[in-house]
Amino acid sequence: METESYTNGGGVAKEIGIANKQTIRGNDFVLRFLAFVLTLVAAIVLGVSKQNELVPVQLVPTLPPINVPASAKWSHMSAFVYFVIVNAIACAYAVISLVLSLANRGKAKGLSLTIILFDLIMMALLYSSVGAAAAVGLIGYKGNTHVRWNKVCDVFGKFCGQVAAAIAISLVGSILFLLLVLFAMLNLHKNRRH
Amino acid sequence: METESYTNGGGVAKEIGIANKQTIRGNDFVLRFLAFVLTLVAAIVLGVSKQNELVPVQLVPTLPPINVPASAKWSHMSAFVYFVIVNAIACAYAVISLVLSLANRGKAKGLSLTIILFDLIMMALLYSSVGAAAAVGLIGYKGNTHVRWNKVCDVFGKFCGQVAAAIAISLVGSILFLLLVLFAMLNLHKNRRH
Repeated sequence: METESYTNGGGVAKEIGIANKQTIRGNDFVLRFLAFVLTLVAAIVLGVSKQNELVPVQLVPTLPPINVPASAKWSHMSAFVYFVIVNAIACAYAVISLVLSLANRGKAKGLSLTIILFDLIMMALLYSSVGAAAAVGLIGYKGNTHVRWNKVCDVFGKFCGQVAAAIAISLVGSILFLLLVLFAMLNLHKNRRH
Repeated sequence: METESYTNGGGVAKEIGIANKQTIRGNDFVLRFLAFVLTLVAAIVLGVSKQNELVPVQLVPTLPPINVPASAKWSHMSAFVYFVIVNAIACAYAVISLVLSLANRGKAKGLSLTIILFDLIMMALLYSSVGAAAAVGLIGYKGNTHVRWNKVCDVFGKFCGQVAAAIAISLVGSILFLLLVLFAMLNLHKNRRH
């Protein structure tokens, strides 16, 4: 009788353990899929952004300004190019790691560790690209009198809106990669020897 | 005799385990101390940077340019302010976490996990600040004709050199925080139940 209850208890504990593992793995898949969607959207939102405007340019002080056609595009600024490339890489990596995680299901521990390492690298790339795009976006929005870099968002408002949206979306994507690493850590911590 | 050799084998395995743990903990301390030094140096190098120059400004096209005093300072640019603040925070955190790790020595697992969480947050902050400073630094170095932001590093060469040095130092600091998370992960992975 005692043995039976002991076995039952063990069975329940094992079931709870399996349920916990499945929840963590489910979280991992959901986060990875969301990270894929967000980095894809961020890359597209900035990648397709383009705005053509007529900008008044004063060539001679005594004459009225002439309207010159000017365009704002992501490829004009290194920081935005870096942002789009990094988000595209993170997006591709999210799909690949999702497929590998589904195929692996935590069996090969070496693969799990490799995925965590690349999650960390993606996190680093994404945060640096968000920082770069935000820094340039802020100068475009506010300008900087010290170095005489004029703001451009008063002319290219729609473009700046798209930049801001892409940055916000990618920031959420970066936070998801941080959470992926954190959950993997909690998973390892749960399964550690006491 | 058999029991003795068994006990010895267990003893050796235990000693190797302890030696491994000590090596990992030693690595953690060394990395944390180096991260402290690097983020401190990065914050100071950019924080003390200042350069005064006479910049020729053409007020009237028919008259020769007038030399106007201009200065380059980290506080003139939001991205550099963010960089200095983040490096100062990471530096302070590195000391606090070093003291806590030394006091804890892996005993309280909750504290170890909290330290890993904050290591991840510091990593995110550092990479975003490196990205931001590098993006602005690059515009200062090369300029951007599309938005008519002129390069300033031809005038403020010394200042730009200090910015580049601070970015490089902080990037190494960020990589150390990534390694701290990675080693903590490997440590948890080693101690997991099979």
